[in-house]
Amino acid sequence: MDFEIVAIGNELLLGFTVDSNSADIGLALAPAGARVVRRTTVGDTPAEIRRAVSEALQRTRHVITTGGLGPTKDDITKKAIAELFGVPLDFDDDVWQFLVDRYARLIRRSPDSNRCQAEVPRGATVLTNRWGSAPGLWLEGEPGLVVMLPGVPQEMRNLMAHEVVPRVRRLGAADAVIASRVLRTAGIGESSLAERMGNIEDVIAPVTLAFLPGEAWVDLRLTAWKHSADDGQALLDRAAQAVRERAGEFCFGQDDDDLAGVLLEHARRAGMTLAVAESCTGGQVGQRLSAIPGSSDVFRGGVIAYHDDVKHSLLGVPREMLEREGAVSEPVARAMAQGVADRLGADLAISITGIAGPDGGTDDKPVGTVWHGYHIAGSTGTRHRVYPGDRHGVRTRATMGALFGMLRRLRAASGEAV
Amino acid sequence: MDFEIVAIGNELLLGFTVDSNSADIGLALAPAGARVVRRTTVGDTPAEIRRAVSEALQRTRHVITTGGLGPTKDDITKKAIAELFGVPLDFDDDVWQFLVDRYARLIRRSPDSNRCQAEVPRGATVLTNRWGSAPGLWLEGEPGLVVMLPGVPQEMRNLMAHEVVPRVRRLGAADAVIASRVLRTAGIGESSLAERMGNIEDVIAPVTLAFLPGEAWVDLRLTAWKHSADDGQALLDRAAQAVRERAGEFCFGQDDDDLAGVLLEHARRAGMTLAVAESCTGGQVGQRLSAIPGSSDVFRGGVIAYHDDVKHSLLGVPREMLEREGAVSEPVARAMAQGVADRLGADLAISITGIAGPDGGTDDKPVGTVWHGYHIAGSTGTRHRVYPGDRHGVRTRATMGALFGMLRRLRAASGEAV
Repeated sequence: MDFEIVAIGNELLLGFTVDSNSADIGLALAPAGARVVRRTTVGDTPAEIRRAVSEALQRTRHVITTGGLGPTKDDITKKAIAELFGVPLDFDDDVWQFLVDRYARLIRRSPDSNRCQAEVPRGATVLTNRWGSAPGLWLEGEPGLVVMLPGVPQEMRNLMAHEVVPRVRRLGAADAVIASRVLRTAGIGESSLAERMGNIEDVIAPVTLAFLPGEAWVDLRLTAWKHSADDGQALLDRAAQAVRERAGEFCFGQDDDDLAGVLLEHARRAGMTLAVAESCTGGQVGQRLSAIPGSSDVFRGGVIAYHDDVKHSLLGVPREMLEREGAVSEPVARAMAQGVADRLGADLAISITGIAGPDGGTDDKPVGTVWHGYHIAGSTGTRHRVYPGDRHGVRTRATMGALFGMLRRLRAASGEAV
Repeated sequence: MDFEIVAIGNELLLGFTVDSNSADIGLALAPAGARVVRRTTVGDTPAEIRRAVSEALQRTRHVITTGGLGPTKDDITKKAIAELFGVPLDFDDDVWQFLVDRYARLIRRSPDSNRCQAEVPRGATVLTNRWGSAPGLWLEGEPGLVVMLPGVPQEMRNLMAHEVVPRVRRLGAADAVIASRVLRTAGIGESSLAERMGNIEDVIAPVTLAFLPGEAWVDLRLTAWKHSADDGQALLDRAAQAVRERAGEFCFGQDDDDLAGVLLEHARRAGMTLAVAESCTGGQVGQRLSAIPGSSDVFRGGVIAYHDDVKHSLLGVPREMLEREGAVSEPVARAMAQGVADRLGADLAISITGIAGPDGGTDDKPVGTVWHGYHIAGSTGTRHRVYPGDRHGVRTRATMGALFGMLRRLRAASGEAV
């Protein structure tokens, strides 16, 4: 079953508010076998609302609106849609009593300015809003179905989950659901990954594949369209296996897996502890590792060696090496990794030294130049990269690159097939 | 001048990605005197893209698209719109050379799968994308104007700021603009701030005020609607002064000001250097400070003292203090700040030790308990807080709280009126 969304609000058009509601509606509808085929955002103008809803009904006959149901004067969704259906607004005593009780409970008087919230287009089903004051409305008529939901995200989400989705399921077609899974990759760009995938779409059909490039990673989303829940999962299992084979070592997990979390888990299984020595990333690697709940049994901490003095005093990088080779160099990356492993008594250590920009680049060492150092159980390796992007991009890519590089080495050291 | 946005991507309709681009485009257009009157989101289907762009052109003649310009085969925006304009796609040697250079710089080969990124609808102006690979396109013709931008948010934002907005200004009609300014506050909650503001809306009218609470701060947006650019700025100046007076020391800057950047600037003016010692935040304070370009003249670095051994070995916190008081305690916070200042030779030091959760809380020290230590030119102070929220929230609030606490103390020490 196809739906359209009409999101209403000047705040959305101006960009003052980011529309998370439309995404949440899409996510909530998929398991009920319904999909969103178009979204339209308009301002708080009756004519615009009528026009957008009318066009959407002509295309799909199923529309969900969000926004414009509150008590303030710019909330005119209900009126505009009632006009479209050719029905009057009736004052609903049950809704009014609900509002009166709610306001009494919140120890406020019931302001007259809320009376319009108890008005209901004739023939509409009221979807009780236990999470706020404006009720949702389910209006079916000759033009089709319009579900009106408030714009407050928490109220909208709860009404979708508890009132709308069950009714959509009863409309039928819920035996065919949309199921999806994300495979996560790092250390490889979108184009190279696309080459590796080759004709995979033929292999995994009817499952489809989408590339979702992030700041320093590429997610691969597999989607099985309109199957029973069980068939969908079986199709996804088969497709995921095929994609994993082609992605090889670059695939580090799926769905909510976090690269730092996966690395910590590998180290934990190997019984090893981890330390970091960061120059240009300034603490970002440590921040990501410590963001994972329970990281403290593996992650010891580290040194933010931003100034060269700190590379010397806390990590033992020789001053003459810093002068001769420069802070962004292979020997310094190696000495930083070795130094932090020694001083923190860690089995594993990651180091990063680089030029994040915007200044500091030279012909030899342009902005984006990064040396990674890796210390694993007594031996130390390095890797050189030139990352694209601005300061933020270089730092994020250097952070993800360091985590992925360590994961790769740890897998290799533990003899794991990659 | 009225614009419509057409956002393209199955991912958006499915709700897998939240569309922040459309909001960012609205924000970027307003100061140029252009407003977004409608947004449409469609999937990666040529017919749908053509239909949505064609309808939008008929309504406003000015359309910005986002998404669908990458190298993978589901990127079909360019082709669909070229068809709509009745023009062929030409292979553009300059764009190709730019891509080749970019890939050469990144020390990769130039994969053939990227050749289609060098195709340009005949007559279109190429908007060079220095932040990624897919160029933006500015296509004017009989149907109107279509600006095609990539969907990667950072690339889209930079292309808007550097290539699109200047061209929109030249299109004219900038006589009635929407001007807005954000005043940034930290260290105070939304309701306390609202109490401080009181009847401010009467004072600053016709400028309006909106509260934008973030994770660990509250932004105040002032908006002047539909005035000349000069009048708008004068109204905002007056309103900003009134709001700043009521917000007092909690207002730390405006618009793009970053709390870490403001702190660094204060330290720079005082000729002081800064170090950090982080336990539960694991590097986040260092990460934020080093994110600011040019931070290296003030920020020396620090120690991520996640494990208690590191608090002792690298910061000199006595083992018996750690055992007697516990790692999350006032004396340990003090010793960490003192220790990192001494070892890094810094004038200023921030320390953080706390319980970010989800585990590790006790009746005495619940999850969210944080001790901050502050070292300023020889003397050390502390502050105790219990932050609400999950692990992510506690860590972010602790980070912002530490930066704001240091800014406050530095201002007081330098005798600045707060």
